[in-house]
Amino acid sequence: MLGIDYIKESIFINAKGAFSMTDPVLINLDQGVLTVTFNRPEKKNAMTNGIYDQINEAISRAEHEAQIKVVVLTGTGDFFSAGNDIADFMTQPPEGETSPVVKLLLRLANTDIPIVAAVNGPAIGIGTTILLHCDKVYAVDSAFFSTPFVTLGVVPEAGSSLLMPKYLGYQMAARLLMFAERITAEEAKDCGLIGHLCAVDQLTEVVAEEARRIAKLPKKTIRQAKRLMRRNEETLTDRIVYEMEQFGEALRSAESKEAMAAFVEKRSPNFAQFDTEA
Amino acid sequence: MLGIDYIKESIFINAKGAFSMTDPVLINLDQGVLTVTFNRPEKKNAMTNGIYDQINEAISRAEHEAQIKVVVLTGTGDFFSAGNDIADFMTQPPEGETSPVVKLLLRLANTDIPIVAAVNGPAIGIGTTILLHCDKVYAVDSAFFSTPFVTLGVVPEAGSSLLMPKYLGYQMAARLLMFAERITAEEAKDCGLIGHLCAVDQLTEVVAEEARRIAKLPKKTIRQAKRLMRRNEETLTDRIVYEMEQFGEALRSAESKEAMAAFVEKRSPNFAQFDTEA
Amino acid sequence: MLGIDYIKESIFINAKGAFSMTDPVLINLDQGVLTVTFNRPEKKNAMTNGIYDQINEAISRAEHEAQIKVVVLTGTGDFFSAGNDIADFMTQPPEGETSPVVKLLLRLANTDIPIVAAVNGPAIGIGTTILLHCDKVYAVDSAFFSTPFVTLGVVPEAGSSLLMPKYLGYQMAARLLMFAERITAEEAKDCGLIGHLCAVDQLTEVVAEEARRIAKLPKKTIRQAKRLMRRNEETLTDRIVYEMEQFGEALRSAESKEAMAAFVEKRSPNFAQFDTEA
Repeated sequence: MLGIDYIKESIFINAKGAFSMTDPVLINLDQGVLTVTFNRPEKKNAMTNGIYDQINEAISRAEHEAQIKVVVLTGTGDFFSAGNDIADFMTQPPEGETSPVVKLLLRLANTDIPIVAAVNGPAIGIGTTILLHCDKVYAVDSAFFSTPFVTLGVVPEAGSSLLMPKYLGYQMAARLLMFAERITAEEAKDCGLIGHLCAVDQLTEVVAEEARRIAKLPKKTIRQAKRLMRRNEETLTDRIVYEMEQFGEALRSAESKEAMAAFVEKRSPNFAQFDTEA
Repeated sequence: MLGIDYIKESIFINAKGAFSMTDPVLINLDQGVLTVTFNRPEKKNAMTNGIYDQINEAISRAEHEAQIKVVVLTGTGDFFSAGNDIADFMTQPPEGETSPVVKLLLRLANTDIPIVAAVNGPAIGIGTTILLHCDKVYAVDSAFFSTPFVTLGVVPEAGSSLLMPKYLGYQMAARLLMFAERITAEEAKDCGLIGHLCAVDQLTEVVAEEARRIAKLPKKTIRQAKRLMRRNEETLTDRIVYEMEQFGEALRSAESKEAMAAFVEKRSPNFAQFDTEA
Repeated sequence: MLGIDYIKESIFINAKGAFSMTDPVLINLDQGVLTVTFNRPEKKNAMTNGIYDQINEAISRAEHEAQIKVVVLTGTGDFFSAGNDIADFMTQPPEGETSPVVKLLLRLANTDIPIVAAVNGPAIGIGTTILLHCDKVYAVDSAFFSTPFVTLGVVPEAGSSLLMPKYLGYQMAARLLMFAERITAEEAKDCGLIGHLCAVDQLTEVVAEEARRIAKLPKKTIRQAKRLMRRNEETLTDRIVYEMEQFGEALRSAESKEAMAAFVEKRSPNFAQFDTEA
């Protein structure tokens, strides 16, 4: 219900001209709030390089258009995002700083635009790690969160290896990043991954109202506060770049190749074959 | 009730000689515990430059008098503190490192004296940020907490932009510092801004008892532990100074001037006039 | 019950040959899980230099034997560990980087082996601080946690002065490290010192099952994730070494000498005698 109603509203309100309901990202500007809606519900809003580019572009637009005060990230359908689209990922894996996902992450790490997330369902992989770059996160009670990088033979991204221990506490970070566990919306709120729980039929309205309130606060001041809060000793930018180096190595590892092959061949991965290496 | 009883007790016990009940800060030393009571209940214990000087002096005294083991901060009346006294603030805004509030903050950031707060009611602005420099905070159930700097066109102070993300988690810090939200005592306990909830009629007694217990622990050792715990990579001192530079800039901004003017003219601020700037 | 059953199982399964039930540390390898059991129940599993050496050796073994994926730390009897064995400690206090406890701590700070703790009862002193180096901690509901260094005139160790403020929040860290408070298992879970509460009769089974699950995840990848998560600005190694310098000073202090003497003479320590020093 949420998804359909939301899209309808977007289509009617959107000032930039009509777009197809099949666009993978919907963009809507209303009263200073730029809403970016992941719109591949049939693929659980799995992210492609094209989608990363569009989100990046939307935030860049918010930085350059004076009337945009807040960005809202949300999804249509039952999932917030199932993470990377594996097929798209395998044809064009991210390695350098110029790949779309890394460009998006560096933008998120360095922007001072307030970003609110309305998590309309489960958030997997980058669906969860992107929340670490949001300033306020609402999630429906039925959402769950998971970053199962390790089961794919790859390492944490999006600076999550820095931000999760710092913001969620070490052991919660380990549950997500080392042990590939799924946590509930309740647990996510307790540890601070999200800030607010919300009934599914109220999410759109509650977030829209809060975003409009934020849009009325003095724009420059709020951004100055965000820049102060995001100031790091080891900058997040350095960490994201370092993680990507590690990610590149991990991606060339036997573990990752086995995980990917198993996925394609629809079988369980055999990690035990690597046990003889210390 | 709390306020009156407490003052009476202070007046009778105080060893430094009598003082008027209208002194804006009451100082009381008893069994190694130096209690500093904000005492402008008719102004909700709003802070003036004079009050900052007196608190600073009290902590300095604790550092130099061998028999003082613990400092307790509390307030008379229904408020802990409503924050800066705007009238006093506007006649003598803090800018350099020699202004009373900055001198107090630098003292708090660098002292190794154990500091306990007994939050007897709502804590606004520096009433909240000062708690980040306390080692143990009790608050009454009815207290609430708010740092609405952004609505005044100014930025976080007291190192709160460093300490809140670090101690409370990023999104809770954002609720307070970016979005000017008010949080309840319950929420404050959940995120670690305070350590203990307390019924209003028990606050004085509970805190006094705990302070006396702390006063009996080995003084030097406890201070050594505090120094270790407060060791920073980017020192808190650097952050407080950097925030004040930003604060000075923010204070000269159109947003801040508009907020202050609106306050004086008893009207809503018009921040929308600045929307055309990117 | 737990202790006895557990030992029996260990004795039967252990592949390295038989050992006496009176060994102070039991080592058991099963399905990639190396279980290290503190086994001085009559001394509440108080730690000696010999025990530190054995734990250190076990983790070193895990680093070098390819088939070991996870280390589990647990105890027999009613206590997880009562901390340092005072008698052993006083005959051979830790000072340099070559003392067994410091060698163990540096190993824990730098290993990338996943470590799970099954806290079978109260955890005191290093019984608590060692948990900061574990990636996942289960504890029985009846456990409690305490690091009363200050009452002994000594300072925090194991990097706890760095990790507790960072992972548990500052005020919870202060309760433990400055104010020598005892916290419940419930409080420990709320602040993130432990990750999971567990009924006492299920602890062994629940932890064993989870450890076996972890053992099946790709070994190299999980270690890469841990290394990323443990990357520090001020390295933990630097902090542990710095704490030990402070510890050495504290140990030679009058406060510590008084605490130790009082312990030996079975009397209350008199810390008030040092009050005249500022």
